[in-house]
Amino acid sequence: MVAGEGAQRKGGTRSADGAAKVTIAEIAREAGVSVPTVSRVVNGRSDVSSATRARIEDLLHRHGYRRRPTAPGGRAALLDLVFNDLDSPWAVEIIRGVEEVAHEAGVGTVVSAIHDRAGAARQWMTNLRARASDGVILVTSVLEPGLHDELRRLGVPLVVVDPAGSPATEAPTVGATNWAGGMAATEHVLQLGHRRIGFIAGPPRLLCSRARLDGYRAALDVAGVAVDDALVVPGDFYHESGFTGAGRLLGLEEPPTAIFAASDQMALGAIEALRRRSLRVPEDMSVVGFDDLPEVRWSSPPLTTVRQPLSDMGKLAARMLLDLARNVELASPRVELATELVVRASTAPPRRA
Amino acid sequence: MVAGEGAQRKGGTRSADGAAKVTIAEIAREAGVSVPTVSRVVNGRSDVSSATRARIEDLLHRHGYRRRPTAPGGRAALLDLVFNDLDSPWAVEIIRGVEEVAHEAGVGTVVSAIHDRAGAARQWMTNLRARASDGVILVTSVLEPGLHDELRRLGVPLVVVDPAGSPATEAPTVGATNWAGGMAATEHVLQLGHRRIGFIAGPPRLLCSRARLDGYRAALDVAGVAVDDALVVPGDFYHESGFTGAGRLLGLEEPPTAIFAASDQMALGAIEALRRRSLRVPEDMSVVGFDDLPEVRWSSPPLTTVRQPLSDMGKLAARMLLDLARNVELASPRVELATELVVRASTAPPRRA
Repeated sequence: MVAGEGAQRKGGTRSADGAAKVTIAEIAREAGVSVPTVSRVVNGRSDVSSATRARIEDLLHRHGYRRRPTAPGGRAALLDLVFNDLDSPWAVEIIRGVEEVAHEAGVGTVVSAIHDRAGAARQWMTNLRARASDGVILVTSVLEPGLHDELRRLGVPLVVVDPAGSPATEAPTVGATNWAGGMAATEHVLQLGHRRIGFIAGPPRLLCSRARLDGYRAALDVAGVAVDDALVVPGDFYHESGFTGAGRLLGLEEPPTAIFAASDQMALGAIEALRRRSLRVPEDMSVVGFDDLPEVRWSSPPLTTVRQPLSDMGKLAARMLLDLARNVELASPRVELATELVVRASTAPPRRA
Repeated sequence: MVAGEGAQRKGGTRSADGAAKVTIAEIAREAGVSVPTVSRVVNGRSDVSSATRARIEDLLHRHGYRRRPTAPGGRAALLDLVFNDLDSPWAVEIIRGVEEVAHEAGVGTVVSAIHDRAGAARQWMTNLRARASDGVILVTSVLEPGLHDELRRLGVPLVVVDPAGSPATEAPTVGATNWAGGMAATEHVLQLGHRRIGFIAGPPRLLCSRARLDGYRAALDVAGVAVDDALVVPGDFYHESGFTGAGRLLGLEEPPTAIFAASDQMALGAIEALRRRSLRVPEDMSVVGFDDLPEVRWSSPPLTTVRQPLSDMGKLAARMLLDLARNVELASPRVELATELVVRASTAPPRRA
């Protein structure tokens, strides 16, 4: 359909040093469009139909055409950090890590939110084309396939930071050891002497939810404590579900003496549910969270939790991306950084019955 | 000293439409340097001495030389949002507001932290020169004067977002009505029936600290309640000072029945100090904060506080900046957005004595 598509000269005319070996006029001839149209695509203008743009960008990519770099050394001196929403509790920690590494490399960090909306994602891509980018870090969110293709055509590398363990992607990912974290939190309350330990789970569609629950079960199993399915209640990582989940656990005939919530926000919700019932943490009930968001140092009481190294995950993702931008091969395309138990004041031995 | 400096042709050769009317060769001749040196400055390279760069940028500015734009329409399609530190509790709220407006305008938001370090600020400026910027939003932090001059020479406009009320700057600022907020919080606990109301203050060098304290005093005065200076204790906006400040108030011969902390972090510190003494909020003591950080919806109990419209402040700053970048005159260079009392569960009438 597209002129030259059948030729399969993929990479054949690409130069090793990245210099443009093909002219805009040649691309225009091959695409069957005018030179100004190719220019508009090269310069990131939006007044070209998406079908034509895709055809031209495909040819530019195939011929290894490089855009005029905007900074010395042929780099854009910018990387893109894309969230679904900036009110994610993780956002600022990840921004901090990415910005630190990018800053040291003399690269600016462009932060965007695409709100699960195709229009917002397209708008971001238009802006990216207009000013170029050395690479993109996506946080959990999944771009529509068309945008993945577009980044590939533009030659812009992609790394995914994934504290939530989303379904697999082709791109390199940085995550955290969720299973080990679930196990560590459960072992901690077991060692304090608890035997009935409630678990408020995350959304089952996310891999990290399953991993944390499996870690909880493994720790009980290792300690020789039978898993009671009544002690596992559903949640969605948000505050409200921790509040209602704790209510369900307290309503059991034989309630737990400790609650492990699979996110800090749910742990704070559980603490509020206990306060409303005049139950004290940790005297009447121990509570453990997961994430170590900055604010849980200052909750009442300060929260015992499993730390996800969010800013380190951001740092590593930025380093991987800068390597990819320089055509350095990655040591490993999938990395999980260690989680770590942080013991504060919300856990204590159970009360003597 | 500088060639041509005495000529005072300020704006004389500047073209109205922003097109370059002067060549790099002419600038080189006037500055007494080579054409490649001027090119390096124009292209944001760092291998030019700062004295030479300043001289050349001054000439470029005076002659109205415009850099080759990186995006259609002569805009960089980027704005810069600069924090001192990204662990500021305000950071993510302000980023959210700025990003929303910038995104709608097709402009990317470059987020940077300069950590009160001259080196980091210089590094940021080098990156900005390399890729251009439509404008800079500074959050509270004060740049060294040299960087202000450099932005002016580059023709990059500046707006300051200032939730802390820093000392005056020449740049347009967006703040919040701190005095009115201090008054509203105090009136709220007065209306609940409290008469002894403790105040944990912010750092006195910040204007917002003074304004909040003055609002507290004004509300007491209007209600005919004498101000007892023993009830005003110092703090620094951080958690720890709220903890110790509440301890001091509780140690008074006649302690207060309510505490107004001039920041949310200090209010959370006060709540933790009360919990440690087995005092309940709000049954035994009412607590009011200031800021309405996202996490205080989820504190135990949820915090009554004064909302600073941080994301709206970010939005307004971005709009002002985009106007300045388009040479639209601002309606007002200093704007304070209204604060608003948010009543949650940490305040109640005092216990009957």
